[in-house]
Amino acid sequence: MTTPSKLALVPFVSVDNMMKLVNKIGPAPMIAEIADYIETDFKRWELFDKTPRVAAHSDEGVIELMPTSDGESYGFKYVNGHPANMARGFQTVTAFGVLARVDNGYPVLLSEMTILTALRTAATSALVAKYLAPKGAKVMAMIGNGAQCEFQALAFQTIVGIDTVRLYDIDPEATAKAARNLATTGLNVISCTSPEEAVAGAQIITTCTADKQCATILTDNMVGAGVHINAIGGDCPGKTELHRDILLRSDIFVEYPPQTRIEGEIQQLDEDHPVTELWRVMTGQAEGRRDAQQITLFDSVGFATEDFSALRYIRDQLATHDTFIELDMLADPDDPRDLFGMVARAAS
Amino acid sequence: MTTPSKLALVPFVSVDNMMKLVNKIGPAPMIAEIADYIETDFKRWELFDKTPRVAAHSDEGVIELMPTSDGESYGFKYVNGHPANMARGFQTVTAFGVLARVDNGYPVLLSEMTILTALRTAATSALVAKYLAPKGAKVMAMIGNGAQCEFQALAFQTIVGIDTVRLYDIDPEATAKAARNLATTGLNVISCTSPEEAVAGAQIITTCTADKQCATILTDNMVGAGVHINAIGGDCPGKTELHRDILLRSDIFVEYPPQTRIEGEIQQLDEDHPVTELWRVMTGQAEGRRDAQQITLFDSVGFATEDFSALRYIRDQLATHDTFIELDMLADPDDPRDLFGMVARAAS
Repeated sequence: MTTPSKLALVPFVSVDNMMKLVNKIGPAPMIAEIADYIETDFKRWELFDKTPRVAAHSDEGVIELMPTSDGESYGFKYVNGHPANMARGFQTVTAFGVLARVDNGYPVLLSEMTILTALRTAATSALVAKYLAPKGAKVMAMIGNGAQCEFQALAFQTIVGIDTVRLYDIDPEATAKAARNLATTGLNVISCTSPEEAVAGAQIITTCTADKQCATILTDNMVGAGVHINAIGGDCPGKTELHRDILLRSDIFVEYPPQTRIEGEIQQLDEDHPVTELWRVMTGQAEGRRDAQQITLFDSVGFATEDFSALRYIRDQLATHDTFIELDMLADPDDPRDLFGMVARAAS
Repeated sequence: MTTPSKLALVPFVSVDNMMKLVNKIGPAPMIAEIADYIETDFKRWELFDKTPRVAAHSDEGVIELMPTSDGESYGFKYVNGHPANMARGFQTVTAFGVLARVDNGYPVLLSEMTILTALRTAATSALVAKYLAPKGAKVMAMIGNGAQCEFQALAFQTIVGIDTVRLYDIDPEATAKAARNLATTGLNVISCTSPEEAVAGAQIITTCTADKQCATILTDNMVGAGVHINAIGGDCPGKTELHRDILLRSDIFVEYPPQTRIEGEIQQLDEDHPVTELWRVMTGQAEGRRDAQQITLFDSVGFATEDFSALRYIRDQLATHDTFIELDMLADPDDPRDLFGMVARAAS
């Protein structure tokens, strides 16, 4: 084997190494640290090169590329969403991502992002709730107890300070799985048998279901005054979770309006329905929660900058954690013009 | 370490393994085989989901994502173009790519594509020349003797049947490098000291220079009747190689007009200037070369389907060549809903 130059090597964080990293740092502290990176990047929002994701839709699902750049680093995520996968023993969502240098275009990190996306989605939700949830919120209803559920619960415990989650899923086995996983977190976990039961007494309602269709997970009468809704699952065209009437009673907060109007709950509303951009709230240019009666809604679809923040975080961890291997992904001949000679010399 | 399931593993072809594969198959046969895959895909052009590449431009260069799909497989390439890199000891262009299944969104191949792009670009050029170059063409001028040069020469020898290359570069060391690398190919290699000398007697002129600016590598009086021009280097906005008058005398053939009008030589022409799509020539719906006097021009910018074809080819080689390793890139818990439990169990 020809020894590749250092320039040819890209650190790669596998699923196994990502799990090691999560367990070394601890899932809750790691989510909180990622939330800090996400908040930092939301606060310098105007720096970012923002484009709606590039989606390839098929009957079975969607494959998306989500690129962004802050002018110094460039990142993108590859992510699929295939609702029928679960029944076939595959993950509904899998993902990986790359961070690169803008000045020379060389990748500096390749990372699994299935686990990392779960962490950054939970981190974003809880970060946003820090600005929007009612003061002193202690109880969260969690409707949809799939792969995201426990990460959300931990994030809200660590960042928002909730002490109780009320779980509901159409499949009781999913609820039982989540309850088991959350048993040692210190959270008071209550398994419910209907969405109505789950939302009783909750100051925060998180919806996170996976059907690729317009569903009504929450109806209007289930949402009382003062509640913060964290709507995760409505994240592509034709996929929504909330009844339109709830949207009309809520103040709606979004990541990036051009993307959310296509993919989020607000695809049900007129194109000019007022929404508030989160970066404006985080930089103090717009108001978050005004009063205790207001219903706030985070219409979450997941934006490229959040993946970028998460990749930045992982790259920074590699200085102190050896949870990676190096891949020779980049051809790096001694003479950049002599790619052919490099290949030919490798034969001998 | 937790043993990942087979579903979590993605074959990865490193630079080292790509070089091994090229040397096992042989560069010339490999280029010819890739050309067959590219031709197959051009012939089923209408099946493909085509979008112009997604580009992030900066002062130093560009980073691009080039996705496409034939409905069964999905592929994309990450590629950078940084003209200043060479002077700093980096490659001007580096690339990697991914092939995935459309039905479940799972990647099935991650591959270096710096070398593979050189192979597919040469394969495409020679494939196109098979349809457009004058009958019995034996002599090619090769202006620009950088990383692409030798691959182009080999491709035209193997697929078109040339026996002579006339090399020219503004840097004589680049020409010397190319002449050395081509010494054992059986080609008659002539090093020239001016572009005028290089084009003398050539039936095919290939231009492949790397400056990110509007240059005039070929002036009008250098191009005689009956010549086929293979213009590789003009491939992004503001980067062209040919004088406009040459374009006006030529019949112009392109990969995908919406992309070529932005990135190719024809960015110098009116938006409605007639061009012929290559897939129409290959399927017999449009004429290629009509007569011996006609000047034909392939305004090459590189299209996503060519990378897709090249990735398909590499994937198919992995059945008989062990030039890959498997990476656990995809989280694959026993219960797809239990991502959190998988991470937690990895700790013990």
